[in-house]
Amino acid sequence: MVKYYVGQKASISRKYTKDDVEYFAQLSGDFNPVHLDEEFANESRFGKPILHGLLTASLLSGLLGNHLPGHGVIYLGQTIRFTKPVYIDDTVTASAEVIEYMPEKGFIRLQTICNNQDGESVLVGEATMLVPKEEQA
Amino acid sequence: MVKYYVGQKASISRKYTKDDVEYFAQLSGDFNPVHLDEEFANESRFGKPILHGLLTASLLSGLLGNHLPGHGVIYLGQTIRFTKPVYIDDTVTASAEVIEYMPEKGFIRLQTICNNQDGESVLVGEATMLVPKEEQA
Repeated sequence: MVKYYVGQKASISRKYTKDDVEYFAQLSGDFNPVHLDEEFANESRFGKPILHGLLTASLLSGLLGNHLPGHGVIYLGQTIRFTKPVYIDDTVTASAEVIEYMPEKGFIRLQTICNNQDGESVLVGEATMLVPKEEQA
Repeated sequence: MVKYYVGQKASISRKYTKDDVEYFAQLSGDFNPVHLDEEFANESRFGKPILHGLLTASLLSGLLGNHLPGHGVIYLGQTIRFTKPVYIDDTVTASAEVIEYMPEKGFIRLQTICNNQDGESVLVGEATMLVPKEEQA
């Protein structure tokens, strides 16, 4: 049985609230006012409060760790480009697609993308992981 | 006045508790038992519960957003290699060093490293950001 294959896809969605941003500020120590101070953020180039970039990226953890590849993986690396700001109360969809899989080495590489509720990409990158090796036929 | 320069450094430290891991599981949707289920984790290759990789990475948000470069930056991208697991109650130190700075473009690139309390590197990578442009002399 082949567990993974190139082209395999999964996605999850989540809406991010003001509370989520405040929790992430506590966890990360990032109290930048563009995330937390509505008055400041309204005057910034973004026009309203935005999520921490790595809070958006955290949804990749939920996708990769629980869905594809799922439990039992070891996270080797992640590249991230932030392509658009994400605003409080935006709904983010994180998607992954297997682009390389070496079953005998247990190595897997996935393209990872996050989109907002308007379908605009807000984060693009790649994840590399180890998964349990498959015996060769 | 030059605000940034190649070789400029900053670092911050934080201890990560079981509560932090549980908060991050809620935020990310990553309920992988290797982070949350002590019995499962003790039987895993790690021998005890480990942090989510992107929870370790979140300390970079605190460092980059609040210290170097600090407020007013725009996060363009981040590369991450996870080099060792981080265990619950480990103290992580995140460090950044400016390795490229183009004042007239407001572009800055930093090497980013996280170490554990034994000085072992657990995460290495690079951050790229925009900072306010400096006028040329």
